[in-house]
Amino acid sequence: MNESDLLARIAERSRGLGGPVEVGPGDDCAVVGAGGRLLLTVDQLVEGRHFDPGTAPDLIARKAVARSVSDIAAMAGAPLVSLGTGCLTRGRPDADELCARMAHWANAFGCPMVGGDLAFHDGPAVLTVTVLGTPHPTRGPVLRSGARAGDLVLVTGRLGGSYTSGRHLSFTPRAAEARQLADALGPRLHSMIDISDGLGRDAGRLAAASGVRIEINAARLPLHPGVTDWRRGAADGEDYELLFTAGGLAEGACSALASIGAPVSCIGRVVSGEGCVVIDPEGSAHDARELGWEHRGDQP
Amino acid sequence: MNESDLLARIAERSRGLGGPVEVGPGDDCAVVGAGGRLLLTVDQLVEGRHFDPGTAPDLIARKAVARSVSDIAAMAGAPLVSLGTGCLTRGRPDADELCARMAHWANAFGCPMVGGDLAFHDGPAVLTVTVLGTPHPTRGPVLRSGARAGDLVLVTGRLGGSYTSGRHLSFTPRAAEARQLADALGPRLHSMIDISDGLGRDAGRLAAASGVRIEINAARLPLHPGVTDWRRGAADGEDYELLFTAGGLAEGACSALASIGAPVSCIGRVVSGEGCVVIDPEGSAHDARELGWEHRGDQP
Repeated sequence: MNESDLLARIAERSRGLGGPVEVGPGDDCAVVGAGGRLLLTVDQLVEGRHFDPGTAPDLIARKAVARSVSDIAAMAGAPLVSLGTGCLTRGRPDADELCARMAHWANAFGCPMVGGDLAFHDGPAVLTVTVLGTPHPTRGPVLRSGARAGDLVLVTGRLGGSYTSGRHLSFTPRAAEARQLADALGPRLHSMIDISDGLGRDAGRLAAASGVRIEINAARLPLHPGVTDWRRGAADGEDYELLFTAGGLAEGACSALASIGAPVSCIGRVVSGEGCVVIDPEGSAHDARELGWEHRGDQP
Repeated sequence: MNESDLLARIAERSRGLGGPVEVGPGDDCAVVGAGGRLLLTVDQLVEGRHFDPGTAPDLIARKAVARSVSDIAAMAGAPLVSLGTGCLTRGRPDADELCARMAHWANAFGCPMVGGDLAFHDGPAVLTVTVLGTPHPTRGPVLRSGARAGDLVLVTGRLGGSYTSGRHLSFTPRAAEARQLADALGPRLHSMIDISDGLGRDAGRLAAASGVRIEINAARLPLHPGVTDWRRGAADGEDYELLFTAGGLAEGACSALASIGAPVSCIGRVVSGEGCVVIDPEGSAHDARELGWEHRGDQP
């Protein structure tokens, strides 16, 4: 069973948790009512998978925090506090620096680290960061499941080449931009996800959660300088940009989003049906499930 | 630098976080105001350290959840929701069962698992569980720092032999008992901690956090059947019993706590000064820092 299957089974088992749980596993964050509503997310950073051995502690720490903050951003929430853990290779000399930089970046990204745990083992480093956030005060949590036929599909920033360029270590989560989007679009901001596993695959997840079909126009993908093949813009992971759908916007309406602190590109549309395709410049449709990457636990 | 030193430095850097943070790192949980007040804690479970390779997935999952719930209990809080992660050895065949049992135990212990992450690596399994809880409605969070000279020192349950007997895998966190203690003692319940690293060491932490001295009477330690040496009751880790101090109680007042769903033993007292000693049956005092175990990251 691969990781997607496993995560799907976890989500399935957790449907209808009830009580304080408004949204359980399967979206970017959980939504929990506790006094006010809270967003909750946790993510792992694994040496050899999410960063190469020898990466500077500051960059490891930054990415560990940024990945979880990006999940809060993907709901248009504001980070509030965080918790961090490290299970480090025995004898690792920079354990203290790593912890210090995690605390630093948690502060820098707006979610001071209020707890954690540290352990050592005979394996690669594994860090986790849990972030609590608050939803946008008027729009509320922006879920993956809100896309509707007729929506435009938009994306912040530029895509592709994140891992090879090192951008995956130094990106700033789009929390401010997500709030600006929710401010500007209000209820017209129908759905959102952050792109961690590749635009195609994450767009497919959004389509599946919403019960719609997403069609992406490859020629419109905003590629990073140096990235020339649309396939890399659609398939490379670790962009941490916001992919969102909006209703009631004309095709040329991205100019209405010019005040957002990042470029916003209209890259496709939501239609009835299911699945997600990327239409290449020659007009051929490619299944998004064949794009994006996945780490398979059942392979060596 | 060993793990205690590292954790102390983390706590030091996080003092006075302000904003919504009422209590930062260094106690059993953080206390955060977000609508209502929340308790937050995260803990790790590492293969080869907290459980032996080959342990049944159900027991691994149970312990992973129970350890974090025990931290909520140590503040007299009620578990609310949880998040879990697993970084498992590549090819591990029981990943799905492990996740299913984590979800099961999270429900069983009152904190449905609302999110998580799963990854694979070439190392021993590392699980984390974050738990959010709510403080006791009238007593509020019971901190480590509230002990005062004149308090009695009390402990729930029995001590010693947890790892060798397998009890460390099957204990039930004392969340219900902690609430009952807060109900029964109210403001007289001055301080509390759960015993994970050995009674002596954890009593030392409570004394240090409170700026007092704790004197424990070895002859009064409630030992598990089969544990005959007081040193094991004072030093063995993984008991997950509640150690607490209470004011305004007469020495024989443990009977007032007879309605608590676990035996409660009065094992010592709080005096002015610093440190923690265990006084053996011959009247010699042993420094608690020399009892209890610690995993040193700087040793092979």
